[in-house]
Amino acid sequence: MRERLGLFACEGEDLVSAALDAGLTPADALVDPGRPALLDRLPSAEEVEPKLLAAISGLAHPPRVIAVFRTADLPRLDPGAAPPAGLALWHVGDPGNVGTLLRSAGALGPASVCLSAGCADPVSPKALRASAGAVFRVPLGSFDKAPRPWLALVPSGGEPLETVELPDRVTLVLGAERAGLPADVVARCDAVATIPEAPGAASINVGVAGSIALYEWRRRRGGTLRE
Amino acid sequence: MRERLGLFACEGEDLVSAALDAGLTPADALVDPGRPALLDRLPSAEEVEPKLLAAISGLAHPPRVIAVFRTADLPRLDPGAAPPAGLALWHVGDPGNVGTLLRSAGALGPASVCLSAGCADPVSPKALRASAGAVFRVPLGSFDKAPRPWLALVPSGGEPLETVELPDRVTLVLGAERAGLPADVVARCDAVATIPEAPGAASINVGVAGSIALYEWRRRRGGTLRE
Repeated sequence: MRERLGLFACEGEDLVSAALDAGLTPADALVDPGRPALLDRLPSAEEVEPKLLAAISGLAHPPRVIAVFRTADLPRLDPGAAPPAGLALWHVGDPGNVGTLLRSAGALGPASVCLSAGCADPVSPKALRASAGAVFRVPLGSFDKAPRPWLALVPSGGEPLETVELPDRVTLVLGAERAGLPADVVARCDAVATIPEAPGAASINVGVAGSIALYEWRRRRGGTLRE
Repeated sequence: MRERLGLFACEGEDLVSAALDAGLTPADALVDPGRPALLDRLPSAEEVEPKLLAAISGLAHPPRVIAVFRTADLPRLDPGAAPPAGLALWHVGDPGNVGTLLRSAGALGPASVCLSAGCADPVSPKALRASAGAVFRVPLGSFDKAPRPWLALVPSGGEPLETVELPDRVTLVLGAERAGLPADVVARCDAVATIPEAPGAASINVGVAGSIALYEWRRRRGGTLRE
């Protein structure tokens, strides 16, 4: 439905404000008239009773605003102007993980996020919430078009992340939650790295792994971007 | 209910196997008779029809096994034998974040996890799934008893994590998802660090922040624990 219409809904003041801050214009918006500040920012919004918002919402705490945006208005990865770092996700199906990685790409980048078929929809409700608005600023692309070079992150057998070469421009390639990266995708990568883990432990979550790799990439370039 | 009875339920082969691998004995177990391997490991389990398991389960894909364990059997933090690193969580209410941090403590430690009142229950279904079995091996303690020194992690204003002093033994103190650490808790910490973020970005998720800090602590000690 979301895909067919090219529209997606955002619930709550934080998320809707993040979309407006990023310059998106809603196709439609419903606002609780008890929130005049929101009405100022959404002049064409329809004022509706809180109980209607509660009835439409998927959240436990009903939102004060629901706004519908166009997927086509989200930032897209432009190969000629790609940020220096990127994440490429292979069949990462959990929307919370996709959203978390978008959030980390926004905070620890600047980084793009490229998704294969089989990844969770980045504008599904759970992914939107986990991204904390980063989906409105982080450029999205498709897996096969992720900028080179590619560094695969695998749970074991790669060069330790602490010592692997991390170029100024790099895409970090991460696999599905259980199955990881298939061998043919690893073979398409230029290098392979592993975050060392304690023996016998379950490997870390994919959202955590991609975020740590972005942190390590940034750390090597002098860390802070707050000049 | 979980708290009153001192019991919690684990659903699915991965989680139940992780509990058995860690040496826990179930108080009760229900197994699909079509899984003889599970019956070998759970000789006192009751064999029940898959549709009964499906009816009891909270999962979208009904499990082949549900086992009930005793909270008292989980590893507890022994102040005399604490692992070198630790996480102390202040009112981290999202069970997915608590589970993710337990998983990272198991994989990137050895680390303990200390919880304040108001944290999500680490043996709630969502936390158990996110911990991927780490809750059966990572020692749990209470916030106030977390070993010293304490390093607070705050979204801004602390010393950059890359350059802050990270002692051989340290507890990383993290705050609630939205409110962060209150000033009086920061004041009780021995030092304050921040993971540098891009200007204007929403700060990273608390589960990601604690995991990155554990990674940084481990990296300084030579990274890999795979001797």
